[in-house]
Amino acid sequence: MLFQVEMTVKLPPTMPADEAAAIKAREKAYAQELQRRGKWRHLWRVAGSYANVSIFDVRDNAELQELVAGLPLFPWMEIGVKPLCRHPSSIRDDDS
Amino acid sequence: MLFQVEMTVKLPPTMPADEAAAIKAREKAYAQELQRRGKWRHLWRVAGSYANVSIFDVRDNAELQELVAGLPLFPWMEIGVKPLCRHPSSIRDDDS
Amino acid sequence: MLFQVEMTVKLPPTMPADEAAAIKAREKAYAQELQRRGKWRHLWRVAGSYANVSIFDVRDNAELQELVAGLPLFPWMEIGVKPLCRHPSSIRDDDS
Amino acid sequence: MLFQVEMTVKLPPTMPADEAAAIKAREKAYAQELQRRGKWRHLWRVAGSYANVSIFDVRDNAELQELVAGLPLFPWMEIGVKPLCRHPSSIRDDDS
Amino acid sequence: MLFQVEMTVKLPPTMPADEAAAIKAREKAYAQELQRRGKWRHLWRVAGSYANVSIFDVRDNAELQELVAGLPLFPWMEIGVKPLCRHPSSIRDDDS
Amino acid sequence: MLFQVEMTVKLPPTMPADEAAAIKAREKAYAQELQRRGKWRHLWRVAGSYANVSIFDVRDNAELQELVAGLPLFPWMEIGVKPLCRHPSSIRDDDS
Amino acid sequence: MLFQVEMTVKLPPTMPADEAAAIKAREKAYAQELQRRGKWRHLWRVAGSYANVSIFDVRDNAELQELVAGLPLFPWMEIGVKPLCRHPSSIRDDDS
Amino acid sequence: MLFQVEMTVKLPPTMPADEAAAIKAREKAYAQELQRRGKWRHLWRVAGSYANVSIFDVRDNAELQELVAGLPLFPWMEIGVKPLCRHPSSIRDDDS
Amino acid sequence: MLFQVEMTVKLPPTMPADEAAAIKAREKAYAQELQRRGKWRHLWRVAGSYANVSIFDVRDNAELQELVAGLPLFPWMEIGVKPLCRHPSSIRDDDS
Amino acid sequence: MLFQVEMTVKLPPTMPADEAAAIKAREKAYAQELQRRGKWRHLWRVAGSYANVSIFDVRDNAELQELVAGLPLFPWMEIGVKPLCRHPSSIRDDDS
Repeated sequence: MLFQVEMTVKLPPTMPADEAAAIKAREKAYAQELQRRGKWRHLWRVAGSYANVSIFDVRDNAELQELVAGLPLFPWMEIGVKPLCRHPSSIRDDDS
Repeated sequence: MLFQVEMTVKLPPTMPADEAAAIKAREKAYAQELQRRGKWRHLWRVAGSYANVSIFDVRDNAELQELVAGLPLFPWMEIGVKPLCRHPSSIRDDDS
Repeated sequence: MLFQVEMTVKLPPTMPADEAAAIKAREKAYAQELQRRGKWRHLWRVAGSYANVSIFDVRDNAELQELVAGLPLFPWMEIGVKPLCRHPSSIRDDDS
Repeated sequence: MLFQVEMTVKLPPTMPADEAAAIKAREKAYAQELQRRGKWRHLWRVAGSYANVSIFDVRDNAELQELVAGLPLFPWMEIGVKPLCRHPSSIRDDDS
Repeated sequence: MLFQVEMTVKLPPTMPADEAAAIKAREKAYAQELQRRGKWRHLWRVAGSYANVSIFDVRDNAELQELVAGLPLFPWMEIGVKPLCRHPSSIRDDDS
Repeated sequence: MLFQVEMTVKLPPTMPADEAAAIKAREKAYAQELQRRGKWRHLWRVAGSYANVSIFDVRDNAELQELVAGLPLFPWMEIGVKPLCRHPSSIRDDDS
Repeated sequence: MLFQVEMTVKLPPTMPADEAAAIKAREKAYAQELQRRGKWRHLWRVAGSYANVSIFDVRDNAELQELVAGLPLFPWMEIGVKPLCRHPSSIRDDDS
Repeated sequence: MLFQVEMTVKLPPTMPADEAAAIKAREKAYAQELQRRGKWRHLWRVAGSYANVSIFDVRDNAELQELVAGLPLFPWMEIGVKPLCRHPSSIRDDDS
Repeated sequence: MLFQVEMTVKLPPTMPADEAAAIKAREKAYAQELQRRGKWRHLWRVAGSYANVSIFDVRDNAELQELVAGLPLFPWMEIGVKPLCRHPSSIRDDDS
Repeated sequence: MLFQVEMTVKLPPTMPADEAAAIKAREKAYAQELQRRGKWRHLWRVAGSYANVSIFDVRDNAELQELVAGLPLFPWMEIGVKPLCRHPSSIRDDDS
């Protein structure tokens, strides 16, 4: 089941550089692990911003919550979620 | 080059049913043709709405304008556009 | 799987009374049928408005879309959707 | 008398972990006590967020104020309130 | 139990003058009847607008809905509702 | 001359408890003094919030400014002001 | 007593030209009469729009309501009102 | 050339009193100097707020920027700017 | 003197095609005439929309108003205006 | 390929003056280097603000992201991006 997730990172510029680097490294490892498991199906940077557009593929709402709330950057992000489903005009087998 | 395009359809309920059906049929044909040509890479329905989330893959901004403005439903839609690019944490070859 | 659905009805005051009555009668029958089937779990009027707060219990996003888009009043409503899941502090067995 | 209450938690990420844990523990105990007393009728997590949708069942506006203002997380939350009442299409005995 | 109700009238300027006058006359009679019954406790015009600020005194949310939805101008108004209760600093006996 | 004044308090949770208590005590004394002088005609808590709805009765805009800017909590509040006047449908002698 | 009034005109482009011209002529006469009487102290066009910024000088809120609601274009305008008073840094005798 | 400038001051309540007083004193001197030079034509307090409505009379956009950016309170203000010009219905010689 | 002008066209889809074509033809001629006269310095389409970003170079606010209000599409557009001036970091001779 | 980029700087007034000066100096050098390379085609100050309107000319979305995210002031700015393309009414050779 697919969800569009939009994340905007709001790290305070005053955070010590090594602390920020450590959080970002954990975020990257977490994101790549979820991609490998097939849960985080797409991940794009929004050009000109510190934000991304993502497509999650989860079992249900509960798994979406578990995965999003587990993001290392979760406390510093504004996050928007939209449930997706197959569009009647789609011709791609995997758009659902 | 990728763009996220979000479209919300605002067809007036007073439009005659056959007129609406004709526009929607042309929209569907247009959307499927662009998908076949690889220009409209993803197309999802936002659940609980008359809206979609789409990913376009175009040569440049001019082609984006040409394709979006050519949508048969274009005069009846609210459309939001975000330029996308590769995210440094993506592991998918085709997320760019 | 639960979703909070908020619906605000925007019927034009100029719609003929019998036409409005017919749509509302179909809406009521539809809502009661979905409640009997267990799909529309809760339905409350927001006091002082022509709006409701609802809880839907569906198999997946696709079913949510099918049920919401099938509402007779769908073309005249503004609709907001939020995916819900179990809250770790809930003690009710059926809050999920 | 029912109210929908939506709460979004905005705990600063810089709050010491044990201080945050203590507040959350008190919040959980408070929420469960109100549920047991029948005042906090439903409590759902909004998937992909640190927010909840709740249904309160109170004697009057004054009791709503007393219960909401008493939340241990009250100073760190954005809270929206909507008065609810029975919907003419509801078939559930307890949707009021 | 008190509620603040804010109403903004959006009558279309194209409505025939006698039709508008008839609705407004019914609205006035209705408002004065509710004031006489003690249900509509205060009614002020917002200066420089076609809007009012009102205080309703009702038994519960259901009565608020019944009275507001019964306003002859209801289909042409934007309405905002806030539940009120006694303020700990109030010294007026009837501010609750 | 009447004004509706809506105040939302945004005291930082990190303010020392005795400092907050002192400001609130001064606010309460100030509010009660203005009520006794007939300047602050009504004061209600908005249920489920740290906000109030108030009706001020002042000589002119300048006195409104003097009284509002003098609130001990003024630097920590978001404040909205609406000028009020007699509504043609009001039947209360003192709604103006 | 001064008020800033901002007016944005929303005449429908489909209004017959002579009807629009007649309303505008009455608006102009009304505006000039109020200026001559000293009630409409300043009137500026907002460049690049069909809007104005005005300063009204009235006896009280009731007179503001009477004058603004009497504008021939009142049913077609969005209007914002702000009460003004003397600024402690002003050195102009007539800025109050 | 005239501009309406609206300024809302957001001084943090935690700023030491003497520091705030010093900035405000410089702001007052600056405002009065610009008024004397004819650049800051009007200055009104918005009643019930820490905000003002001002009319600037400058040579061009560049001078507007120079004067506004030079305000001692500039780093603590939200500022809105609207270019003004003569209104065809104005009868005042100096409303341009 | 430069202004950024953003225009979004809201032509109703129900306008007869020849009427729309006639207005657009006049708009195009007008836009090209202003470009030739050096008044409309830049004109770009916002990709994926029926909107443009423009840079006007005018003598003063009054000329901006005259040129913008004269646009054949003016009654059907939402228009935003920002005054521009030279940026201290610009190295282009004509960015002012 | 052109993009409009609007940047609003939100440097905290409490940042030490030399630290702010150092960041601004790096920002200026960066902006001028990009202008010389032809990437930052226009740069204007929005009069009455600490904001700018810019036109970037980049190879693709990825280069836009690289250049914008590299701005020394990036962590302290709110940034809006709009993709631009040639307008059919433009007569300037370089408006694309």
